[in-house]
Amino acid sequence: MFLNPARDGAVLPILHLNGYKIANPTVLDRIPDEDLHSLMRGHGYQPYEVAGDDPTRVHQALASTLERALDDIAGIQRRARQGEADPRPRWPMIILRTPKGWTGPAVVDGLPVEGTFRAHQVPIAAVRDNPEHLAMLEAWLRSYRPEEIFDATGAPVPNVAALTPRGDRRMSAQPRANGGTVLRDLVLPDFRDYAVQVTRPGSPSSEATRTLGAFVRDVIVANPDRFRLFGPDEVASNRLGAAFEVTDRAFDAEIRPGDDHLSADGRVMEVLSEHLCQGWLEGYLLTGRHGIFTSYEAFIHVVDSMVNQHAKWLKVTRGISWRRPIASLNYLLSSHVWRQDHNGFSHQDPGFIDHVVNKKAEVVRVYLPPDANTLLSTMDHCLRSRHYINVVVAAKQPAPTWLPMDEAVLHCRRGLGIWNWASTAGDAEPDVVLACAGDVPTLETLAAADLLRTHLPDLRVRVVNVVDLMRLQPEAEHPHGLPDAQFDALFTVDKPVIFAFHGYPTLIHRLTYRRTNHHNLHVRGYKEEGTTTTPFDMVMLNDLDRFHLVIDVIDRVPGLSSRAAQLRQDMVDARQRCRDYTRAHGDDDPAISGWQWSPQPPAA
Amino acid sequence: MFLNPARDGAVLPILHLNGYKIANPTVLDRIPDEDLHSLMRGHGYQPYEVAGDDPTRVHQALASTLERALDDIAGIQRRARQGEADPRPRWPMIILRTPKGWTGPAVVDGLPVEGTFRAHQVPIAAVRDNPEHLAMLEAWLRSYRPEEIFDATGAPVPNVAALTPRGDRRMSAQPRANGGTVLRDLVLPDFRDYAVQVTRPGSPSSEATRTLGAFVRDVIVANPDRFRLFGPDEVASNRLGAAFEVTDRAFDAEIRPGDDHLSADGRVMEVLSEHLCQGWLEGYLLTGRHGIFTSYEAFIHVVDSMVNQHAKWLKVTRGISWRRPIASLNYLLSSHVWRQDHNGFSHQDPGFIDHVVNKKAEVVRVYLPPDANTLLSTMDHCLRSRHYINVVVAAKQPAPTWLPMDEAVLHCRRGLGIWNWASTAGDAEPDVVLACAGDVPTLETLAAADLLRTHLPDLRVRVVNVVDLMRLQPEAEHPHGLPDAQFDALFTVDKPVIFAFHGYPTLIHRLTYRRTNHHNLHVRGYKEEGTTTTPFDMVMLNDLDRFHLVIDVIDRVPGLSSRAAQLRQDMVDARQRCRDYTRAHGDDDPAISGWQWSPQPPAA
Repeated sequence: MFLNPARDGAVLPILHLNGYKIANPTVLDRIPDEDLHSLMRGHGYQPYEVAGDDPTRVHQALASTLERALDDIAGIQRRARQGEADPRPRWPMIILRTPKGWTGPAVVDGLPVEGTFRAHQVPIAAVRDNPEHLAMLEAWLRSYRPEEIFDATGAPVPNVAALTPRGDRRMSAQPRANGGTVLRDLVLPDFRDYAVQVTRPGSPSSEATRTLGAFVRDVIVANPDRFRLFGPDEVASNRLGAAFEVTDRAFDAEIRPGDDHLSADGRVMEVLSEHLCQGWLEGYLLTGRHGIFTSYEAFIHVVDSMVNQHAKWLKVTRGISWRRPIASLNYLLSSHVWRQDHNGFSHQDPGFIDHVVNKKAEVVRVYLPPDANTLLSTMDHCLRSRHYINVVVAAKQPAPTWLPMDEAVLHCRRGLGIWNWASTAGDAEPDVVLACAGDVPTLETLAAADLLRTHLPDLRVRVVNVVDLMRLQPEAEHPHGLPDAQFDALFTVDKPVIFAFHGYPTLIHRLTYRRTNHHNLHVRGYKEEGTTTTPFDMVMLNDLDRFHLVIDVIDRVPGLSSRAAQLRQDMVDARQRCRDYTRAHGDDDPAISGWQWSPQPPAA
Repeated sequence: MFLNPARDGAVLPILHLNGYKIANPTVLDRIPDEDLHSLMRGHGYQPYEVAGDDPTRVHQALASTLERALDDIAGIQRRARQGEADPRPRWPMIILRTPKGWTGPAVVDGLPVEGTFRAHQVPIAAVRDNPEHLAMLEAWLRSYRPEEIFDATGAPVPNVAALTPRGDRRMSAQPRANGGTVLRDLVLPDFRDYAVQVTRPGSPSSEATRTLGAFVRDVIVANPDRFRLFGPDEVASNRLGAAFEVTDRAFDAEIRPGDDHLSADGRVMEVLSEHLCQGWLEGYLLTGRHGIFTSYEAFIHVVDSMVNQHAKWLKVTRGISWRRPIASLNYLLSSHVWRQDHNGFSHQDPGFIDHVVNKKAEVVRVYLPPDANTLLSTMDHCLRSRHYINVVVAAKQPAPTWLPMDEAVLHCRRGLGIWNWASTAGDAEPDVVLACAGDVPTLETLAAADLLRTHLPDLRVRVVNVVDLMRLQPEAEHPHGLPDAQFDALFTVDKPVIFAFHGYPTLIHRLTYRRTNHHNLHVRGYKEEGTTTTPFDMVMLNDLDRFHLVIDVIDRVPGLSSRAAQLRQDMVDARQRCRDYTRAHGDDDPAISGWQWSPQPPAA
């Protein structure tokens, strides 16, 4: 449970075994008692069993067992708070066995119902048409003795009404069950203080998530009671290790010398189960706290089904007036598809964005910050937001830092924008738009822009970077959607747009298909080609590399194909040379991996 | 394990605890021994422990423990085969504890490595630049005494080479590990024999999956050694219950009187865990057998991450010559988004198709048969196919049967087609195309076509139904992609297309964005609006209902909006009346739920 009995509350799990699910017995009801108790003890619990089919006896047995379990919990907490060592307390849990469909109809149409799978969902099906069924329903409902429970007007009689809890003790009014009512803002340090000092576009290089790590560290310090970091043993791997300068990983089993930052009080929750991380974080948010879930990009699909349900909960509760908004569910996905130096094809799937974008627009946000400073600005925004699912994809490897912090903030506020310093079109209408979203696609786009300004200096190129993916959708589809006039201004109404995208290319098409210039939009992205290989080989395998982007420009700008035939051929050859280099050296050509943007183009 | 010791082989699980994952200890290594053994016993095993850090001793201990465990398994099987009752044998398993990075470098840069998390992946990082690291790597590799293992040419010496298995005993050549080599075709009854006899389009009504169930039953009978049905306790709920006329659910815990078709020999594998079902089926396919996984549509997202990896395996092994193709992974998704009479918003997510379509085109197929006969034809095709992931979405509730079997077969062979009997355009160019994919959208489209022929008899309407969703993609993108000329012929190059789709509308856009007439394509589908409600209320909540489709036609066919203003207003009013009816009666208006297609339009 990762609970610290000296400080935390406790949970009393009740395993209710009524024996059946839809049409089958449940496994745990049919394994030997000895095995079931072993299983619970193996999970660290002291099981207590309550079983029976006589309601009065079961109610009393359950009440006394609850008392006993609560006494156990109180004892564990008391000893821990008195400083008595009990490194792994055996928390109580209850196994409750009662018949399925208990006190419902015993037999329907000659078949047993109570105590069998037939009690699932609708035990008497034909009450509208079958008088016998209707009579059974009436007998069943009368067995609750409604004349003793309700008065003549149908209201509960006073001694029943007096049993219901009042005020905050009502289940849905419990402040902890309506987390928004107890939610307090995070105390956030100024993210600008963590900025990488950019001397010129692209320099110095920085590791985006490591830069963010220092900010996250100070968020942890400033919010000791309301912020946690969750991850499947990937907090350090995703380079947020600065968190461990100020806290530990929560751990409630044996801790040995040499372990790296484990303690009962850690604010980082790590276990190699995305399901557990997601469940923990959902519970933490729903009870009024804040958090970030960091995961390898490919494996966050493990929680697709869970995030569906959270998104549906967010959507529905937006329309319930007494439900207060909770903190957003923030995903920071790193170790992403484009960097597979040590992993490989199994680790390549940028499709979580596609999955999330299917959910209701008002609860979903997707950000692809291209560098460390834009990541800082983005994450600050996400931590201040409410009732959203924010998906942020960012790199952990050293990469160019494109924007000084003041420009990064403006860029993130806009969500997208022209990078004039990388464009050759200036104030004129461009011949081609190079659009990009994601750190690696941005790098390749800038390198392509460099090649174009060098080899085709009279070509008017506009570079547009997209941080907030939802800006691409029409205004009517998403609250962040860019008005058509602004979209047309940025992407033109009739010029080719070569869009280098982090994920599957079709996502850009589905977001933009209603835009005026959509038929001129050509998207490069991940097309399920990859292996354990170098960074540049990965982009080449998917035709997202700088050379291929230049080829795409030549193929699509009217009139270029004949005049730039030699350049096109050079680009084809450059790809082949890069490929050969990786096969010969096991690494990328330093001319590629060492490429940097310079304010002036090199001589052609 | 759901193994029958009297018939099946066995599995000997080894839990290897080397103590750490990436940066943390593993939980199972740090809980008390007593708890770990309880956990294994709780799962039904007899645990044996082998632990140590002296290689020679551990190797010998492991060898003798393996012998003992294999003897245990042989004993269980022998007793079972002699008919001795042992209803729940305690299968052996081994807990193997050795240091992480065992026999690797003990200390690097002053920090312990062997036996710690630092041994993860790359224990000595800087061998290229740091001479000390290089020397450690050399010492480590020399510790394996290469001079005794390899000869002067670098080949293994004869006594080492003699240890390696030969022929089929090599790991990758094991026939069971290259399932395609032992795969035998299914013996398939003629699916036409199970056809619903259609007297006129839409009549009689039939339950598609129940009709399929009889076919599946006979597939089970004809293939007692190579076909299984998998599902999270949804085989009966998804109306494939005919399977239980000939077989049971596999179950290896206690079976009690009154249980519904449980036995140690059942060919149906049911447990309420999509993860387990997926894992079982993948293992079954990879070892040369066949199967179908049936699930509620919304909850198949639980296995998103697993199906990713299977798709990647299929893609990669297509390029490995000695890997033989295996049977396809067949999903039958029912209890789908549009029928939520008993469930609700939590059960509504048609996005598994979107997820699968991101995978490589050559391994992915998606089918939306509109009725029982097309479902039969589709599933017969899927069971004959190899090395694909086939996703089939079909209804279980009573619904119109549109096509006689001979037409259903032709329609499925084509993958899509004009339903001339429902169209008023005849051989002429239509004014509007009503396209549909999925059973409920097809029903609403036909009802809209009925309204249009009644109220706008001079409007030329063409109805196109799509079974094979991949036909919509361009030829260059998917092997099933329809050539552009054929697509243009069906969907026209300039007429409005109102497409009623089963899933999220954007999927149709991303499949068709390159088509000539894409800018005239208007898609209705699920837009995350729903609750526990009637079938017609569900389609109305998402603007997919017949009345809204007619409104879409009026709004989009040039010249119609003024001339059909009254009809448009009637449609708006009809929606409101239907909504009011559901609120007053808790059910759909019988005029809606009882609507049938008739060869002649009713009088306007």
